[in-house]
Amino acid sequence: MITSLVTGGAGFIGSHVVKHCLDMQHRVVVLDDLSGGFEDHIPEGAIFIKGSITDEVLVAELFANYKFDYVYHLAAYAAEGLSHFIRRFNYNNNLVGSINLINESVKHKVKCFVFTSSIAVYGAGQLPMREDMVPQPEDPYGVSKYAVELDLKAAHEMFGLNYVVFRPHNVYGENQNIGDKYRNVIGIFMNQIMQGLPLTIFGDGTQTRAFSYIDDVAIPIAKSVDTPAAFNQVFNIGADKPYSVNELATVVSDALNAEVKINHLQARNEVMHAYSDHSKAHSVFGQGSGISLKEGITRMADWAKRVGARKSKEFSNIEIHEKLPQGWEQITANNPAVPA
Amino acid sequence: MITSLVTGGAGFIGSHVVKHCLDMQHRVVVLDDLSGGFEDHIPEGAIFIKGSITDEVLVAELFANYKFDYVYHLAAYAAEGLSHFIRRFNYNNNLVGSINLINESVKHKVKCFVFTSSIAVYGAGQLPMREDMVPQPEDPYGVSKYAVELDLKAAHEMFGLNYVVFRPHNVYGENQNIGDKYRNVIGIFMNQIMQGLPLTIFGDGTQTRAFSYIDDVAIPIAKSVDTPAAFNQVFNIGADKPYSVNELATVVSDALNAEVKINHLQARNEVMHAYSDHSKAHSVFGQGSGISLKEGITRMADWAKRVGARKSKEFSNIEIHEKLPQGWEQITANNPAVPA
Ligand SMILES: NC(=O)c1ccc[n+]([C@@H]2O[C@H](COP(=O)([O-])OP(=O)(O)OC[C@H]3O[C@@H](n4cnc5c(N)ncnc54)[C@H](O)[C@@H]3O)[C@@H](O)[C@H]2O)c1
Ligand SMILES: NC(=O)c1ccc[n+]([C@@H]2O[C@H](COP(=O)([O-])OP(=O)(O)OC[C@H]3O[C@@H](n4cnc5c(N)ncnc54)[C@H](O)[C@@H]3O)[C@@H](O)[C@H]2O)c1
Repeated sequence: MITSLVTGGAGFIGSHVVKHCLDMQHRVVVLDDLSGGFEDHIPEGAIFIKGSITDEVLVAELFANYKFDYVYHLAAYAAEGLSHFIRRFNYNNNLVGSINLINESVKHKVKCFVFTSSIAVYGAGQLPMREDMVPQPEDPYGVSKYAVELDLKAAHEMFGLNYVVFRPHNVYGENQNIGDKYRNVIGIFMNQIMQGLPLTIFGDGTQTRAFSYIDDVAIPIAKSVDTPAAFNQVFNIGADKPYSVNELATVVSDALNAEVKINHLQARNEVMHAYSDHSKAHSVFGQGSGISLKEGITRMADWAKRVGARKSKEFSNIEIHEKLPQGWEQITANNPAVPA
Repeated sequence: MITSLVTGGAGFIGSHVVKHCLDMQHRVVVLDDLSGGFEDHIPEGAIFIKGSITDEVLVAELFANYKFDYVYHLAAYAAEGLSHFIRRFNYNNNLVGSINLINESVKHKVKCFVFTSSIAVYGAGQLPMREDMVPQPEDPYGVSKYAVELDLKAAHEMFGLNYVVFRPHNVYGENQNIGDKYRNVIGIFMNQIMQGLPLTIFGDGTQTRAFSYIDDVAIPIAKSVDTPAAFNQVFNIGADKPYSVNELATVVSDALNAEVKINHLQARNEVMHAYSDHSKAHSVFGQGSGISLKEGITRMADWAKRVGARKSKEFSNIEIHEKLPQGWEQITANNPAVPA
């Protein structure tokens, strides 16, 4: 039997990866500290261990006990815009935590280490983003993701550890945390609508993103371990068509039968237009599901109506308060995401 | 009065930077955990705090108490070749420790943050190394240095923190730890000669490095805070002329009046020829001291004869033992350095 570790398996993308791994008949162990995920998102049939990837003793124990064939590493605190203000936490959680997993994967000869990086590694002004560009990340979140990518490459060259790196692009869908005020514009919009609030947008809303339905991301991630052509490669992954945040506001409002109400806040230091070239992923994993933004948003809205809005979690340990964007220090304000 | 923090000020380069800062009439606080440095290397007149940059509470206290104008950040565990085998320690010490300093420098509006990175950020095959190349580091040490560079750039753009990044190149001179078996080929050679041992060389010794005398590195580092043209820039720094490790063995043996005896070990996974373009540094900081390899080595040898060889420190917490190079697990064996 194949045994897989899915870190962050109680989170949005991770919970879908767990489901697909179970469908592939893997025995699945989820390691998640529930800092951003929910236990009830973990699909039935998976073994759940509550704990942190930063706990190297626990991580070593799990590898020794379960002898993982594959590691899907999705655990991260993924609030890109906030990462400027929580630098130490960001590097500890997202980089050092990842290194614990890489160390044990080398020692236990894991067959493939699948890592969800981010388009945040590219930095601004490299468009369309292509995998053969040399990344130049511009914020601590992107720096930590890129450092993990480079460390995996070094571990492959030194120790032969196989890896697959995915750089997903503004993913949305069922199980997304719509209570996180620091990121995920779609979840934030839904949450705001369900609370009767206007949609908050930083700047004039003409910034564009290619919003990606979860199936187009979680399925290739899960299948990558059975795709040797993907080994030791980096893939952009997600939707091709960019939409402005204003257009998105309309689609989301329609899906929830709400009037479009927008509250424009001061513009933020963020990439204006972010879109990726996915031809490499298409050539190795085939075309995506073909689910349109309207259809994907409708599915997600139906789920959101069923489960209701969860309460926004405050991040309690801001390290730098200077220049923290409007709303991030206040409990009631919400705001749209940067690409995570 | 100008107050400066020098992390790693009990170390080799740091102790020279402290001296030059004292000459510039700074009040100097040294933060060093003595993991690699020696208290008696700290020049008289500096305030010494024994502690680690990874201790964020201590770091915050120091910034609050001393209100530093400048931070010279040299503390690091700089054994590049070993970093594959001590990944977690490497990122904790060299990256997260640096982030503690960056956080406090932002909060306390430090006027300039001077960071010693390394040519390890370039990776192999980019020769001559020039500052306008996009780094592609290939080992955890280089990845951690590059991540700090990127984080400084992000901190500058978000918070206006000024920085100067130096990428020194195989530095040697008085106060160099000649008891560290993991790195610093010159110190290791001297130590071996003084113990009557043959000089160990990985491979055939034709790999080349431009060995840089300490004055050509420590003086520009110290002066950079008074050089606004250097702010928010990256500089290669060090000597221009490359020598093979075999040539070096001869120069060092001559300086210590010893016969040249060499023990060639199995070649190692390392860059064969590493040399940097220093025209950018020359244009901002002027030409170097003009001290030749022969003269620099003679000065260092005189110092080494005076102080004697210190005992080699073992690194006690190797995380991965697989592929650890010959000699690194044995107490008596020594070996030449990779570029640190
Ligand atoms: N959602 C996106 O658009 C997007 C885009 C690019 C990359 N990513 C990456 O994909 C991965 C999953 O993102 P997501 O959107 O599902 O986010 P998510 O917050 O829903 O999931 C992350 C999960 O990781 C867990 N976690 C965080 N820190 C942990 C730690 N130290 N130990 C154990 N568990 C921990 C959280 O509890 C959560 O369940 C992340 O690595 C993220 O950086 C996401
Ligand atoms: N020597 C070189 O050729 C060379 C080349 C490129 C870059 N560098 C960089 O220059 C800097 C100084 O190097 P060096 O050659 O003087 O090395 P060194 O080992 O002599 O000095 C480093 C000092 O940092 C201290 N230190 C290490 N970890 C610490 C921690 N967590 N907290 C406090 N102090 C800590 C050590 O005790 C030591 O005194 C390092 O950042 C190194 O990476 C050196």
